[in-house]
Amino acid sequence: MKIGILGSGQVATTIGHKLIQLGHQVMLGSRTQNNEKAAAWVKAAGSAASQGTFADAARFGELLWNCTSGLHSLDALREAREDNLRGKTLIDVSNPLDFSQGFPPFLSVCNTTSLAEQLQAALPETHVVKALNTVTCSVMVDPARLGPKHDIFVSGNNEDAKALVVMILKEWFGWSSVIDLGDIKSARGTEAYLLLWTRLYGHLKSGEFNIQLVRREL
Amino acid sequence: MKIGILGSGQVATTIGHKLIQLGHQVMLGSRTQNNEKAAAWVKAAGSAASQGTFADAARFGELLWNCTSGLHSLDALREAREDNLRGKTLIDVSNPLDFSQGFPPFLSVCNTTSLAEQLQAALPETHVVKALNTVTCSVMVDPARLGPKHDIFVSGNNEDAKALVVMILKEWFGWSSVIDLGDIKSARGTEAYLLLWTRLYGHLKSGEFNIQLVRREL
Repeated sequence: MKIGILGSGQVATTIGHKLIQLGHQVMLGSRTQNNEKAAAWVKAAGSAASQGTFADAARFGELLWNCTSGLHSLDALREAREDNLRGKTLIDVSNPLDFSQGFPPFLSVCNTTSLAEQLQAALPETHVVKALNTVTCSVMVDPARLGPKHDIFVSGNNEDAKALVVMILKEWFGWSSVIDLGDIKSARGTEAYLLLWTRLYGHLKSGEFNIQLVRREL
Repeated sequence: MKIGILGSGQVATTIGHKLIQLGHQVMLGSRTQNNEKAAAWVKAAGSAASQGTFADAARFGELLWNCTSGLHSLDALREAREDNLRGKTLIDVSNPLDFSQGFPPFLSVCNTTSLAEQLQAALPETHVVKALNTVTCSVMVDPARLGPKHDIFVSGNNEDAKALVVMILKEWFGWSSVIDLGDIKSARGTEAYLLLWTRLYGHLKSGEFNIQLVRREL
């Protein structure tokens, strides 16, 4: 499958690497056509990898990923141009983290809205599915590194798009438990969780963790 | 120990019941001296149980619990009067949940502050420790009902007060894992988690759940 990834940071290249391993063609999109980090990744990743602008990557992909930093995601998606995104599924793994005051960060939006909702509102004909934003990128593409049992979440308005993402998480990435939290508004929950995640990161001194739901056996 | 609990709802009476079972004397505090729910609880709980105003309960307790609903906690603590709270540990299990727009609720404060910080700022000579607000009250006092392994969090500025609360959680209530997230500001994380908790509640159709941290074994 032709897959476009918006972003060229560690999250983008980690997901890109995994998708290449799975046999897909991946284009990383950046603000500029010749972004250096994207170029280094393309050089290492081989012939199935390419790079371009945000618009190039959005046009290229049958499936799209938003791996830009949350504070810049709306701008990046605008640069990608709505007509390149229309009718496609956009997996949004970003978080609206504002590090301007240091660590731990604030959220730039939360509670009564979420970044995922803002992206969906800006792109009404694109199927935004929030996913994977509750774990660090090494865990996103290799959940088994933490053990067999822990949970990941999806939120989105389009059931077919969500089913596609659940399939990708389970079949491609190996997630054993994917919890559908509901429509895109439920991304408020997983984005706000970052306020706890960052405190846990401070406590554990590592981002290599996740949560497992424990419920009463009835 | 003489323990004052501010509140007379299900959280207050569940914790009160557990503390009575453990051999303590418990006074529930309410806005009015003769609150009906508190009276019913006192009648059922026996001679170690009593009721009074918020100020009565705060004066009575060597240790205090805030089990009022989050939207009214600041008012309740004001009615309890600062001189009745000075130098004491106040375990804050409340959440600033605003149900005025229905379910799921919003948070009335979050992200750049927390209810626990607001309580601590209003009561600078009281040792506020945020704890247990990430689970429903039946789980607060009986974590084993969900199984042996899941996590609970504490946040607070005073290390001695926090050590007392950790002891209470472990020795009195049976929590096997208590994670110290840091100072009272870290309550932003556990309060914001309620935005995910309420979505999980909607998914599971039950509040009888918690999270267990899963981390990479190095």
